[in-house]
Amino acid sequence: MRTADLIQKKRDGGELNSDEIKFLIEGYTKGEVPDYQISAFLMAVFFAGMTDRELSTLTDFMINSGERVDLSSVPGVKVDKHSTGGVGDKTSLIVAPLAAAAGVVVPMISGRALGHTGGTLDKLESIPGFRTDLTIDEFRQQLADLGLCFIGQTAQVAPADGKLYSLRDVTGTVESIPLIASSIMSKKLAVGLDALVLDVKVGSGAFMKRQVDARRLAQAMVGIGRRMDKRVQALITDMSQPLGYAVGNALEVMEASQTLQTSGPEDLTRLSLELAARMIFLARIAPTLEEAREEARRRLLDGSAYRKFKQVVQAQGGNPQSLERFELLPNATGMREISTPRSGYVSGIDAEGIGRASSWIGAGRDRKEDAIDPAVGIILEVKVGERVDAGSVLARIYYTREERLEEAAEILEGAFFISAQRPEDRELILEVVG
Amino acid sequence: MRTADLIQKKRDGGELNSDEIKFLIEGYTKGEVPDYQISAFLMAVFFAGMTDRELSTLTDFMINSGERVDLSSVPGVKVDKHSTGGVGDKTSLIVAPLAAAAGVVVPMISGRALGHTGGTLDKLESIPGFRTDLTIDEFRQQLADLGLCFIGQTAQVAPADGKLYSLRDVTGTVESIPLIASSIMSKKLAVGLDALVLDVKVGSGAFMKRQVDARRLAQAMVGIGRRMDKRVQALITDMSQPLGYAVGNALEVMEASQTLQTSGPEDLTRLSLELAARMIFLARIAPTLEEAREEARRRLLDGSAYRKFKQVVQAQGGNPQSLERFELLPNATGMREISTPRSGYVSGIDAEGIGRASSWIGAGRDRKEDAIDPAVGIILEVKVGERVDAGSVLARIYYTREERLEEAAEILEGAFFISAQRPEDRELILEVVG
Repeated sequence: MRTADLIQKKRDGGELNSDEIKFLIEGYTKGEVPDYQISAFLMAVFFAGMTDRELSTLTDFMINSGERVDLSSVPGVKVDKHSTGGVGDKTSLIVAPLAAAAGVVVPMISGRALGHTGGTLDKLESIPGFRTDLTIDEFRQQLADLGLCFIGQTAQVAPADGKLYSLRDVTGTVESIPLIASSIMSKKLAVGLDALVLDVKVGSGAFMKRQVDARRLAQAMVGIGRRMDKRVQALITDMSQPLGYAVGNALEVMEASQTLQTSGPEDLTRLSLELAARMIFLARIAPTLEEAREEARRRLLDGSAYRKFKQVVQAQGGNPQSLERFELLPNATGMREISTPRSGYVSGIDAEGIGRASSWIGAGRDRKEDAIDPAVGIILEVKVGERVDAGSVLARIYYTREERLEEAAEILEGAFFISAQRPEDRELILEVVG
Repeated sequence: MRTADLIQKKRDGGELNSDEIKFLIEGYTKGEVPDYQISAFLMAVFFAGMTDRELSTLTDFMINSGERVDLSSVPGVKVDKHSTGGVGDKTSLIVAPLAAAAGVVVPMISGRALGHTGGTLDKLESIPGFRTDLTIDEFRQQLADLGLCFIGQTAQVAPADGKLYSLRDVTGTVESIPLIASSIMSKKLAVGLDALVLDVKVGSGAFMKRQVDARRLAQAMVGIGRRMDKRVQALITDMSQPLGYAVGNALEVMEASQTLQTSGPEDLTRLSLELAARMIFLARIAPTLEEAREEARRRLLDGSAYRKFKQVVQAQGGNPQSLERFELLPNATGMREISTPRSGYVSGIDAEGIGRASSWIGAGRDRKEDAIDPAVGIILEVKVGERVDAGSVLARIYYTREERLEEAAEILEGAFFISAQRPEDRELILEVVG
C-alpha cells in the first residue's frame, strides 16, 4: 500500500476501505507515515469529505490508537454531554449534577479554554483546591460512589487525535466537518459510554457560524455514534450571544451555582434542563422525553442536583462552601463599566467579541501553554431584545491588571449593537438531530 | 505572517499576494517553512486553483530560488522547445537542429525518462560518448559556436521546483495544472530565453488524457510566459498512439536520424517541421508563419539540419558516424514479433501500453535511480488506420534480457485494437494556444 495512492484516491473522491484508513492512522501514530503526507491527506478530506463508513472507520482507528477507559465495573448507565464550545457556556456544571441526581452515571471528560471559548476544566479549577488530574482508578471510584466525576483528557486516550489535531492546527485543516466529528467522537467513545448528548453551538460565538454547517456536524457525530451502537442525540443551539450573563471562570462558577439554586438566568436554566432531560431519557431512566424533562426539573427544584454538585466538589478536593460564599472564590480587584451612548434596543451581542474581550484580560488563552486568571471576566447587564436608555450599563469588566483593560473595553463596546427597533426573538434551541 | 493563515486563505478561494507567495516559496527553499505545511498548501492549490497573477508570481519566485543561466553573452535569439512528454516523442532531436540550422539559438534543457514516457537526455546518451553533463560555460560556448546545445537540468536552476516536485510526488499533488505549469515554466524561464514553443501532449500516452485539460495547461503556461514578456506558443498534439514507429532510446535516435535525412515517418516529420517553424517564427527569423514553415522545410531538405545535428553530436563527445552506421549504436541481442490473430483495421494503439512495455524491458525507469538499457525498445510495424491480415506483424520487441520479455509481450499485445471498420482519422495537431 502506498500512502501517495491513498491520498490520491481520497482526493479524487474515492472511498477508502478499512485497511487503507488503518494504514494511514496506525502508520501516522507510530511515526511510519510522515506528517507531510498526512497533512495533504487532511486537506484532501477537507475538500472531498468522507462517507459515513469512512468516518466511522476513521473514528474507530483513532480510538484504537490508545487506551480505552473501561467503566464496565461501574454500575449504571453512563451518559456524557459534550458542547462544541461557546462563550459563557457553563452548562456542564449544571447539567452533569442534574443528570447524576436523577441516577445517570456521568463520566464527564472536559477540555480547557482556547481562543475566545471557555473550558470546563478551567472553570472548575477556579474553585480553590479542585483537582481534575485524577487517576483513572480515582475516576472510576468516584463514579461508583457519586455517579459523577469531572476529569481532563488524558494523553493515553485517542493519542492519534492529539497528533492529528496539532497537525490540523498548523495546516489550515481544522474546519473540516468529518475531521471535527471524528476528533470529538474518538475522545468521547474511548470512554465506556452508553449514550452521549451533544450541544452543537451555532452563531458568532461558535465554531460553526451557519446552521447548515452545525447540522452537518451534528449529523456526522450522531451517525458515528449510531454505527458504534451508542445512543446519541444532538441539540443545535444558539451562540449568537453569550449564554447567561457571566463570562470568565470563577464568575461562571458563581452563575452555575446560582442556577443550581434555582436563581439562574432563564436561557441557561432552560438549556441546562433540556440537555439533562436528554441525558436522562437516553439513559432510559424515564420512559418518555416529557417525563425525563419533569425528572430534570424536579432534581433542580428539590435541591438534589445542587447537593450532588457540592458532594462532587468536595470529593475532588474543592471547598463546597465557596459555591455559596463567593468571597472564597478568586475575586477580581477592579471593575469597569461599559455603557451605551444612546437609547434603543439591544439588537445583538457578538458572542465572539465578548469571548475575545474576556480572554484578552486573562480569562482565556491564545496558546495551550498560556496561564489563565480565574478571577477575571465579564458580566453582561443586558441580553438581546432588552430596552436600554442612554448611559445605562451594558456590561462590567472584572479585572486584576490594568494593562490590557483599555483594549478589552474597546472590544467589548464593539460587541454591543443598539437599534431603534426591537429585534425579532431568536430561538435558543434551534434543532434536534438524532 | 502565519503559514497556516496563508494555507487557509488559498483553501477558501482567496488570492495570495506577492509577499505571501514569496514567504511560502522562499521559506520552503530555505527550510523555514516545513514540508507538512507546504504539502497541505499544494493540496489546497489542487482543489482551489490559482489565478493568473498568483501563477506568474509563484513561477517567478521558483525561478528566483536559484541561479539564472545568463545567455546574454551569446548573440542571437534564444528559443527552446518543451514537450510535456509522450511515447516515441523524439521530436527534440529533429526540431532543435532544424531551428538551429535556420539561425535560431536553441539552448535545449531536457529531462530523463520516467514511467512510461521517454526522456531526451537518455536518448542522446545512447549515442556512444555523448555527454549531457556540460558546465554552464561549455553550454554557453557551444551555443555561441553552433547555435545548439543539449544539456540536463542542473540543481542550481530553480531548486524550489526540485524540492516541490519531490514533495508533490509523494503527496498526491502531481496532477495540478497550476503546479505542472509553474514547474515547467520555472525551469525554462530560468534560462535566458526569448521565446518558447510548447508541445502539450494529449491522449492515452500523455499526462493529460483530456483535451480540455491539455488546453488549460497550455493556457496556463502561455499566460505565465506572456506576463514575463516572453513569446510563447503551445501546440496541443495527439498522443493516443506513439509518434513515429520507434520507442526506446537508441531506436529513437535511429528514427530521428532517418527523419533528418528525409526518410522518417510522416507524422514525426510533420510535427517536427511545425514545431521548428514555430520556433523560427517566434525568433522573428521569418516574418510570417508560412515563411517560417518554408524555411524549416528547406533546412530539412537541403541537409543542413542533419549536418547541424552531426556537428552537435561531435561537439558533445558523441560519434556522428553512429547516426548512419547504426551498428555503432547499442543494439539489442534478441527480437520477438507480436502479430495479430485476426484481420481488420488497426483502430487504436494505446501509447501508454507501448510505453509501459518498452519501459518494462529496460528502456525506461520506474524510479529516478533506476538504470536504463539504451539498446532495447519496440518498433511498431503498423499505425492506426492501417489494414492488417491475420498473422501480420504488429510490432517487434528488441530486448537484451529474456526475464521480462513475456510480460512485455503481453502488455504490447493488449495495446493494439483491431476492428472491422476503418477508424476515423484523428488530427495530429489539434490546437494552437497563444
